[in-house]
Amino acid sequence: MSDFLTETAVDEAGVAELSDGWLIGDALNGGYLVAPVLRRIAAEGPFPDPWSVTTHFLRPAGPGPARVEVEPVRAGRTTATSRGRLVRGGTAHVETLAVFGDLTAGRDDAPELVPPAPDLPPPEECPERTEIGQGVDLPIARRLEVRVTPGSAVGGASDRAVMEGWIRFRDGTPPSSLALTLFADAFPPSLHPLVGTVGWVPTIELTVHVRRRPAPGWILARFECDDLQRGRMVETGALWDSTGACVARSRQLGLLLAR
Amino acid sequence: MSDFLTETAVDEAGVAELSDGWLIGDALNGGYLVAPVLRRIAAEGPFPDPWSVTTHFLRPAGPGPARVEVEPVRAGRTTATSRGRLVRGGTAHVETLAVFGDLTAGRDDAPELVPPAPDLPPPEECPERTEIGQGVDLPIARRLEVRVTPGSAVGGASDRAVMEGWIRFRDGTPPSSLALTLFADAFPPSLHPLVGTVGWVPTIELTVHVRRRPAPGWILARFECDDLQRGRMVETGALWDSTGACVARSRQLGLLLAR
Repeated sequence: MSDFLTETAVDEAGVAELSDGWLIGDALNGGYLVAPVLRRIAAEGPFPDPWSVTTHFLRPAGPGPARVEVEPVRAGRTTATSRGRLVRGGTAHVETLAVFGDLTAGRDDAPELVPPAPDLPPPEECPERTEIGQGVDLPIARRLEVRVTPGSAVGGASDRAVMEGWIRFRDGTPPSSLALTLFADAFPPSLHPLVGTVGWVPTIELTVHVRRRPAPGWILARFECDDLQRGRMVETGALWDSTGACVARSRQLGLLLAR
Repeated sequence: MSDFLTETAVDEAGVAELSDGWLIGDALNGGYLVAPVLRRIAAEGPFPDPWSVTTHFLRPAGPGPARVEVEPVRAGRTTATSRGRLVRGGTAHVETLAVFGDLTAGRDDAPELVPPAPDLPPPEECPERTEIGQGVDLPIARRLEVRVTPGSAVGGASDRAVMEGWIRFRDGTPPSSLALTLFADAFPPSLHPLVGTVGWVPTIELTVHVRRRPAPGWILARFECDDLQRGRMVETGALWDSTGACVARSRQLGLLLAR
């Protein structure tokens, strides 16, 4: 049994039962909200792996039933593009535009460029996300084990807005191409080490490029904000699997709210 | 008179007349195809500036009339999200998901982080895109003056996949927040300096985050591919205006085709 698979399932009527296990404060984690949409796209479409997933977070959502709507846009020989959304009471909470393909396909004869993983202390030397004091309850820690490096853990102690660490499902579910969008949205804000406790940094839009199906084990992650203008930030991330392969890239537009 | 404004206009019936002035080989530039969609979103919605624009390029398009469809997704106090597409004969060529706002609004009291512009040779020391021999006709050079640094110009002569240079409208039209999505898709592939002549590198998906309204003058641009796996590349870019302000960030998923 996998909490992730059970709690992102979509029934034949297109309804997902959103679980309170993925709450951050009063709102469900955004990456969690995308997962049922991606699962329905994968179930209805010809390809198993998300290649590029863009999600606009329209309104926060709490636990309970929600309808998953998916519309094919174009299906080709190697990719299929779909729109999707999570709707409750006639109101969309997330709107997604995604292209799926087969990550194991592609050219074997092309040159390769792979971003190297940063050299991080091992997970057991990194505090859990729950220990770093962001001033919010984290029920999601029952589902995801998120560890951040000592250098990322202390608010306002760094001269760079870099958040690094490790992530895996708490129950031993292996990572998958569908889970990486969730993993890319499950770390504390990269502004935390630079600015200090920043509270909720709402994501307006998140795009995740999945690069490979991840191997079992910990996922290593690095996020950086090098662009914060008028309270609007661009955060850029990358994820690597236990073999050192770069498995996903991410970029989001977020808001640093006044406190 | 501005070619960009004239040739991206959408009439009251929602029809744009796509001009052959923006051709690269037999296909219109992808960023050009997005412009009428963005103009219609801006005309129909409450906000003037794109903040985040994700476009999936479904099929190439040539010159001629095309219908622009726009659907509001959510309109809030500071942002509005919309879907849009360019359709011809019942078939969509691009599908866009975008959030608009007012780039001049936002917090004045938040910390700022601004990516510094690279130090490039001035435009007059940089060859035009038409001079670097990509093996394709570039009618678009009548509309856009694209200059690339000597270090980016020679195919296969660099140990990095970095494309840097300058861009402006040929007819003196000043850059605008709506034009930056086009500018982010108008340079030769960043793989060119590393790999050599790569031909058409189809963009599957492009996301542009517009950060500021650009000042008049040249736009400086830098694009890098540090992630090429099985022929699928992630290219990351940034644009700066003549005052040195970072005005846009971009990221795209593209394909390196076998030749």
